[in-house]
Amino acid sequence: MQLSIVESDMPLVRIALPAGKPPAFRQNISRGVHRALVETFGVPEDDLFQIVTEHVVGEGLVRPSSYLGIEYTDDLVLIQLTVSDTRSLEQKQRLFARIASNLTESPGLRPQDVFINLVEVRKENWSFGNGVAQYA
Amino acid sequence: MQLSIVESDMPLVRIALPAGKPPAFRQNISRGVHRALVETFGVPEDDLFQIVTEHVVGEGLVRPSSYLGIEYTDDLVLIQLTVSDTRSLEQKQRLFARIASNLTESPGLRPQDVFINLVEVRKENWSFGNGVAQYA
Amino acid sequence: MQLSIVESDMPLVRIALPAGKPPAFRQNISRGVHRALVETFGVPEDDLFQIVTEHVVGEGLVRPSSYLGIEYTDDLVLIQLTVSDTRSLEQKQRLFARIASNLTESPGLRPQDVFINLVEVRKENWSFGNGVAQYA
Repeated sequence: MQLSIVESDMPLVRIALPAGKPPAFRQNISRGVHRALVETFGVPEDDLFQIVTEHVVGEGLVRPSSYLGIEYTDDLVLIQLTVSDTRSLEQKQRLFARIASNLTESPGLRPQDVFINLVEVRKENWSFGNGVAQYA
Repeated sequence: MQLSIVESDMPLVRIALPAGKPPAFRQNISRGVHRALVETFGVPEDDLFQIVTEHVVGEGLVRPSSYLGIEYTDDLVLIQLTVSDTRSLEQKQRLFARIASNLTESPGLRPQDVFINLVEVRKENWSFGNGVAQYA
Repeated sequence: MQLSIVESDMPLVRIALPAGKPPAFRQNISRGVHRALVETFGVPEDDLFQIVTEHVVGEGLVRPSSYLGIEYTDDLVLIQLTVSDTRSLEQKQRLFARIASNLTESPGLRPQDVFINLVEVRKENWSFGNGVAQYA
């Protein structure tokens, strides 16, 4: 069965990582975030668009030692996802939980070290090629 | 005739390019995106604020081989524009089409390899200097 | 007294700087932006999450020579803050003014060279660890 366009999503994901980690660290985070989108937001497997950057902690990636009782380490990753504004609060909560559990599983992040933010836009605000607003 | 402040826009454009291209590739994409904003959104010529970054494909710039029948190559560029929420769907469609046609013309991208996303904000959310919200 | 979660905010700040500046330039901008958030938005001191990047002016950081009468130099910094949509226009105006005055004080930027944009999201769109939407 093909997913209808109405049900699909169109995330653009920006992931900021601490510098100096092995390639598997980046790959597993990239995959774990995408798998969570597929599993909780119904995003198609091949709807995969990410920009992954690395930053020196304390210079390019600035963080507190803790916030609201959550203690962070230098492994903290900052994940910002631009998505269509079609998700319920319950779906967002499931996404956050799934991203954290996927990244805890691999590459083995502490769940505290997973920071996530969603930016929501209208469905008509995407063109994934050919100059067409495919979801309008 | 001078554009009134009410009609003008205030885009902040983020362009993620594949690494390893010659400078003309970047320059032509930068210009083509800006020209499309001028031509379809009525953005003033000198309202030009862009952050252009380069990423190793498959590491920093992660993409599918295809999505919804659109096939991508390693030339795929990801363009995210933050704009005021004053545009109609028809204007957005014209912007997407114009960006794709400009970049097809120069530097010669395939139209499939142009990914675009708009993030809309209120007009009061911009300060372009002096600590003033000029559009409020 | 502890700030209630309702009153606190959750900014994710992206700061794009010109390349080639000494470390103190970056540090002072990072601190000045955060101090302004604390002073005008009531952001807790330890709610500090920033991604600071450097870009070659004219290549990675593209700017006009002037816009609406504001003249820019190569010191122009582009600041984009993702925040919860709980602030009044008056608070935004105070934030913009405070960022500009803090950065004028240190590292000594011209107030014209401070570009600011706010992206607003729902309070439920944040997870700052443990996979939980703490503000939902």
